[in-house]
Amino acid sequence: MTVSRITALETIDIRFPTSTTLDGSDAMNPDPDYSAAYVIVKTDAADGIDGHAFVFTIGRGNDVQVSAIEALAGHLVGRELEPLLATMGATWRDLVGDSQLRWLGPEKGVMHMAIGAVVNALWDIKAKRAGLPLWQLLSTMSPEEIVELVDFRYLTNALAPEEALEILRAAEPGRAERAHELLANGYPGYTTSPGWLGYSDAKLEALVRQALADGFTQIKLKVGADLDDDIRRFRKARAVVGPDFPIAVDANQRWEVDEAIAWVSALSEFGPTWVEEPTSPDDILGHAAIARAIAPIRVATGEHAQNRVVFKQLLQADAISIMQIDAVRVGGVNENVANLLLAAKFGIPVCPHAGGVGLCEAVQHMSMFDFVAVSGTRDGRLIEYVDHLHEHFVVPTEIRGGSFVAPTAPGTGMEMKADSRRAYTFEGELHHVA
Amino acid sequence: MTVSRITALETIDIRFPTSTTLDGSDAMNPDPDYSAAYVIVKTDAADGIDGHAFVFTIGRGNDVQVSAIEALAGHLVGRELEPLLATMGATWRDLVGDSQLRWLGPEKGVMHMAIGAVVNALWDIKAKRAGLPLWQLLSTMSPEEIVELVDFRYLTNALAPEEALEILRAAEPGRAERAHELLANGYPGYTTSPGWLGYSDAKLEALVRQALADGFTQIKLKVGADLDDDIRRFRKARAVVGPDFPIAVDANQRWEVDEAIAWVSALSEFGPTWVEEPTSPDDILGHAAIARAIAPIRVATGEHAQNRVVFKQLLQADAISIMQIDAVRVGGVNENVANLLLAAKFGIPVCPHAGGVGLCEAVQHMSMFDFVAVSGTRDGRLIEYVDHLHEHFVVPTEIRGGSFVAPTAPGTGMEMKADSRRAYTFEGELHHVA
Repeated sequence: MTVSRITALETIDIRFPTSTTLDGSDAMNPDPDYSAAYVIVKTDAADGIDGHAFVFTIGRGNDVQVSAIEALAGHLVGRELEPLLATMGATWRDLVGDSQLRWLGPEKGVMHMAIGAVVNALWDIKAKRAGLPLWQLLSTMSPEEIVELVDFRYLTNALAPEEALEILRAAEPGRAERAHELLANGYPGYTTSPGWLGYSDAKLEALVRQALADGFTQIKLKVGADLDDDIRRFRKARAVVGPDFPIAVDANQRWEVDEAIAWVSALSEFGPTWVEEPTSPDDILGHAAIARAIAPIRVATGEHAQNRVVFKQLLQADAISIMQIDAVRVGGVNENVANLLLAAKFGIPVCPHAGGVGLCEAVQHMSMFDFVAVSGTRDGRLIEYVDHLHEHFVVPTEIRGGSFVAPTAPGTGMEMKADSRRAYTFEGELHHVA
Repeated sequence: MTVSRITALETIDIRFPTSTTLDGSDAMNPDPDYSAAYVIVKTDAADGIDGHAFVFTIGRGNDVQVSAIEALAGHLVGRELEPLLATMGATWRDLVGDSQLRWLGPEKGVMHMAIGAVVNALWDIKAKRAGLPLWQLLSTMSPEEIVELVDFRYLTNALAPEEALEILRAAEPGRAERAHELLANGYPGYTTSPGWLGYSDAKLEALVRQALADGFTQIKLKVGADLDDDIRRFRKARAVVGPDFPIAVDANQRWEVDEAIAWVSALSEFGPTWVEEPTSPDDILGHAAIARAIAPIRVATGEHAQNRVVFKQLLQADAISIMQIDAVRVGGVNENVANLLLAAKFGIPVCPHAGGVGLCEAVQHMSMFDFVAVSGTRDGRLIEYVDHLHEHFVVPTEIRGGSFVAPTAPGTGMEMKADSRRAYTFEGELHHVA
């Protein structure tokens, strides 16, 4: 077998000027510029396959995220590729376990997301080499191989490796039928496109109608800036969809614990199906208090949960009824496999966060893998869909009748078109670390 | 009054090659190179006063931390200095509340520590302008002014502004006597210098004897890599100090929850006064489970607690008996004022983390302010002391009879000597952002 090596981490600071249209505006993020701290792992392999990945940010600070990715070049450039790809669990532990880099988190924020991007870029190479989309690559791995991907450090009091193995073995029968079903009918999505706070009521109503016409079975509204506005907007949306259609609301961390309870109570007559990010993403006990107070309305969170240790506690504390993983917030595919296994252990559905730029393309693979090989079900599970910026991706998200069409192209879905990378490079800079 | 403006954030990547001597070696950090992502806030003021501060790291990644500090230049360069200094609470909220930068945390990791450094540099200017050491400057502020420094977002279900005000008002009588007492007799310290894992038993014993001779009333040993080693080292230290002398142990996040309980139980015959960082700093519920299981041995943590929301929960969950704030992990002086108030509300002593480079110089001000104006007591409270790298600071920590001598020089204590900054600049680079 030929030996190939990593020759460079190429990084690009990519920013889309979304703040000009108020796409993505919510109670905490009034004017995001959807951005990607983008990395290409280059190799000298004869197959010419590069690994693509990114960290999603909302503008300022994207350069800091890029520099964190560049700081990992010393760990990877010059190393043999095949051993890294063959033991992705060990590769993850090598990066996350660097004791000096670990001080900058540990396992949170800019440095942890940078590691996640590099890990995801390696998964992109691995999937492309296998000729499989990521969800399918993961679904061909044995339970033992999947468990080996997971770092159980700090998890064992909630999920031991043997328990993870049991979960995966229980889902082994039926993998093939579920993959077939997925390829035939896709994975259900819901749309947040109508709900941004910066939109007028007329635009809201038109987009809600469009969501129904498109076949979505749930929508989500942003809330939390002004209660009267929220009530008016919720009422208008409810009038369009009728009394039984699920409408989730998302406060984007805007509230204090007591405020969340009072605000949700004021919205309860409109029947929110879940309340998302009611308060600080770090406040596990706060989420638990809110969940107890607003039941049976459900609490959802996770797009800002920094790692598996936070998800573990949200589950242990009965703080969430919906786990919302994000493709690029944690340490990449490996840590999201841990998160899926935690959710399965606690019997909580995973409904990923997406939107932004490239997040739908990326995270759908985790839900599809979950269906085929972990939880074994799509019941009560939906992937967030936002109709932004898909045209920039080599394998754009495809929606049919409100469901995500299972991708069949090899890779993780995170590769952005070269033209788009060039067109949206911030200040024309392209950094090359080798 | 003259208007002065911030003209530049000058940053320096400073690294000391401490890994060569195994100073600072513990179960998770075998070979740290103590480093500082250093910032100087330059102004055009006629007084010529610059603000100095830093984020402590342990080597690799210090460049990432520097780039995060540089990313804040756009917020500060060109702005009028006096309004920023006059309303430090608003200044903090302006930086932490930047919605785009916030996405990179929120309020955790590299970006949050960068904000902390810039905030601390402004406090350095404010204290130097006032001609006071930071502890004394804070202790001259009214309860109302102190409360104004604190961002109560996400705290109000544990500590409301009115409660903070009550705590501070209750400590107002006696401020002058306590400041006098502090200047006369200092603030008690304990030493970790004997306890690094990389040291031989002979060096351990000699340093424990030295600690006694120096007048320290507590020492701390690193544990967690190997139980037999820990038992042997603990026994040797105990033999030197006798049965009643407090010895703390520090596992530096090494254990699983169940492992921590078993390990501490195996060490319990030697009477550890507290067990520090038994597991992940993110695992609030894990710390609570450990605390319940090992009582009456106390749990201490906080040097890696990312922000006030984590401290709030550690207190709410009865997970800690000792709160260990760090001067540079959270969002600077303002967030540590919040942490001191939380500790006072819950009746938990604050025993800061220090050591590293410059951490003793910096954090002593918070404990001294706590004594004079918040908790009003030093009972059961000690500041960590490690005898490393003090010679590089303009106002080095002074220890007398095991106590920290209260500094009287103006500033926060974070200013490093110009010669040292030059001598230890990493790869000779000096970045200038203006």
